[in-house]
Amino acid sequence: MHRERLDDRLADLETDGYLIDASQDDANQLYLSGFTGPDPFLTLYADGEVHVLVGGLEYGRARKEAAADTVERHADYDYEYGGREARNDMYARFVRNKGVESVSMPPRGPVGTADALRERGIEVAVDTDDRIREVRAVKTDEEVDAIREAQRANEAAMRAAEELIAGADVAGDGDDAETGVLLHDGEPLTSERVTEEIEVTLLRRGCALDQTIVAGGAQAADPHDRGSGPLRANEAIIVDIFPRSKATKYNADMTRTFCVGEPPATLREWYDLTERALDAALDAVEPGATGGDVHAAACEVYEDAGEPTFRTDPETETGFIHSTGHGVGLDVHESPRLASGGEELEPGHVITVEPGLYDPDVGGVRIEDIVVVTEDGHENFTEYPIEFAL
Amino acid sequence: MHRERLDDRLADLETDGYLIDASQDDANQLYLSGFTGPDPFLTLYADGEVHVLVGGLEYGRARKEAAADTVERHADYDYEYGGREARNDMYARFVRNKGVESVSMPPRGPVGTADALRERGIEVAVDTDDRIREVRAVKTDEEVDAIREAQRANEAAMRAAEELIAGADVAGDGDDAETGVLLHDGEPLTSERVTEEIEVTLLRRGCALDQTIVAGGAQAADPHDRGSGPLRANEAIIVDIFPRSKATKYNADMTRTFCVGEPPATLREWYDLTERALDAALDAVEPGATGGDVHAAACEVYEDAGEPTFRTDPETETGFIHSTGHGVGLDVHESPRLASGGEELEPGHVITVEPGLYDPDVGGVRIEDIVVVTEDGHENFTEYPIEFAL
Repeated sequence: MHRERLDDRLADLETDGYLIDASQDDANQLYLSGFTGPDPFLTLYADGEVHVLVGGLEYGRARKEAAADTVERHADYDYEYGGREARNDMYARFVRNKGVESVSMPPRGPVGTADALRERGIEVAVDTDDRIREVRAVKTDEEVDAIREAQRANEAAMRAAEELIAGADVAGDGDDAETGVLLHDGEPLTSERVTEEIEVTLLRRGCALDQTIVAGGAQAADPHDRGSGPLRANEAIIVDIFPRSKATKYNADMTRTFCVGEPPATLREWYDLTERALDAALDAVEPGATGGDVHAAACEVYEDAGEPTFRTDPETETGFIHSTGHGVGLDVHESPRLASGGEELEPGHVITVEPGLYDPDVGGVRIEDIVVVTEDGHENFTEYPIEFAL
Repeated sequence: MHRERLDDRLADLETDGYLIDASQDDANQLYLSGFTGPDPFLTLYADGEVHVLVGGLEYGRARKEAAADTVERHADYDYEYGGREARNDMYARFVRNKGVESVSMPPRGPVGTADALRERGIEVAVDTDDRIREVRAVKTDEEVDAIREAQRANEAAMRAAEELIAGADVAGDGDDAETGVLLHDGEPLTSERVTEEIEVTLLRRGCALDQTIVAGGAQAADPHDRGSGPLRANEAIIVDIFPRSKATKYNADMTRTFCVGEPPATLREWYDLTERALDAALDAVEPGATGGDVHAAACEVYEDAGEPTFRTDPETETGFIHSTGHGVGLDVHESPRLASGGEELEPGHVITVEPGLYDPDVGGVRIEDIVVVTEDGHENFTEYPIEFAL
């Protein structure tokens, strides 16, 4: 954790402390407490110290694991299970025990806890800037290494997917609906089968995963469609993998688009255009440039070729219909945003760059690399070739 | 969804509507909206209708997937990306557009949204009872079937784990530290290796998973320790698996404890006692009994044998140191609680029953089945033998 950066960013808050009530599923909580508690627990940052409050069942593990100055348990505040009000009383006692009469909470902190503390005379302000999220955006070298390691697993999984797709046969020349379907061991090769291969590969390399996208044809035209059913030759197949290391909890993220056989001319054009948009966006990644600048660089390539973007038509449902990228860390989507209005890039930002084109009548193409912003530009630590036709 | 039950439970709220701001990761959101949105979106329940508001990228999928009466997108409220205040203005317009001037939010709803709506003149109350969570606790037949299906995958994974453990060799009779370590293909059999086998089995059966517990020896004495390193003969190995079906999003949950070779006398005693505690608790499961009654039935077996429980010593760190069980559904831990003060059981509750004993000097034993409360008792749909020594 960037403790100095944390102190800097929280310095102008007008409250005595910063309070998080969440489980490890919340990245701010995991970052500030360093503790993988499966149930919600409290972390209070005040006077430069991190204080953690957990239930008895978590106490031993929290004392060992948490990156906290103090770890206490419910019993230290004379709490036995006695329902919601007793629990809120305990929370208020814990906060006051640290000399804190006012706290900031992140915007997605629980309103139940906020209102309960207010009822007990503790002032609660919403940290609308979500400052801990901002602190998280700039990675230490250790964090960058963790993401890099997850990316190595990601590449192994992508390789497994590519081999499965490239090794498929194509169903024969009849006139029936099956023509062009990819076959593996005589069975149609489905999105689900490729996803399974990816996820098993990731598990064997110590990564968990939330969702994987293997989407072909019209499905690939919806950037959030995870894909299902048989894949086909001569269509674009988007493979987007974002694993999370079980050990470090850091994520990686990469997308490639493949085509078995000869890509139709439009898809070929889209792919080349997207590769150029990727290069243009990557060229723009350096400290001092904004996320908006990087997004603009990608948009310009598409717009010059006559493809719609959100800049030229905010309501378009085809063309380049998402942002150019996002930060990656404990969350797979975090700060900074590479989009219109996106913030200034700083050394230590780890971001994806992922232009793409979409149209249900054509399909979808996306290419995504993951890079770290350095003092004088960026380092692309994606080690996977960019190749369309298999 | 139990729409009638929902209307019943929300009827006494004094607000015009019920608002959820969350992604699909929030079980209340998934339940009420039926939509698997990866980013936070709004669902408003008012006048018996479900209204969903999503970003443009999700709109097509939400219209197809969501179990909602209306699905709208940000552009319908003249919103383009313009930062936080513009977003909050849009949220207020959406709520007012449905004739709603006051909303309830669940206790873990985001305080940022609650306060922003309050600033815009919309009254926000916290539904401290978390009524949608309560509605979720009673399952429809379809939901029970989904959990049952996840449990079948769970049993396949448990079988794979048991076979791996039972098939292990035991490191030889020397005096060194390796004596008694389980060996698989000549290498120490670790918690991580067994976990991998479990998770790969679950993936192949369409289940995702969050965390799996394979903990031996002293590690098994901490109910939340996920386990690491080599497993050994003559120690208790707790295997706790809680997969989630990718298709239905419903969870299952089961625990078995194994021992390779001859269990030490204390562990053997603990195992028999725990099996009796399980039977006693299961006998108590019927409509009208409370979660507290079921917990008491398990505690009595342990207490009669002189083992400490939270009832006899709230600060004990050994003995039966957790609740007897919990509801299972879209969340792996949900209502009802089988613990002191736990609520009355109703037909349709799906619950785990999972007594256990723990002491770092001895190890840990836990046996967990999953059952559904029926009109005249319960149906145990766990189809896995209860056997200690392998």
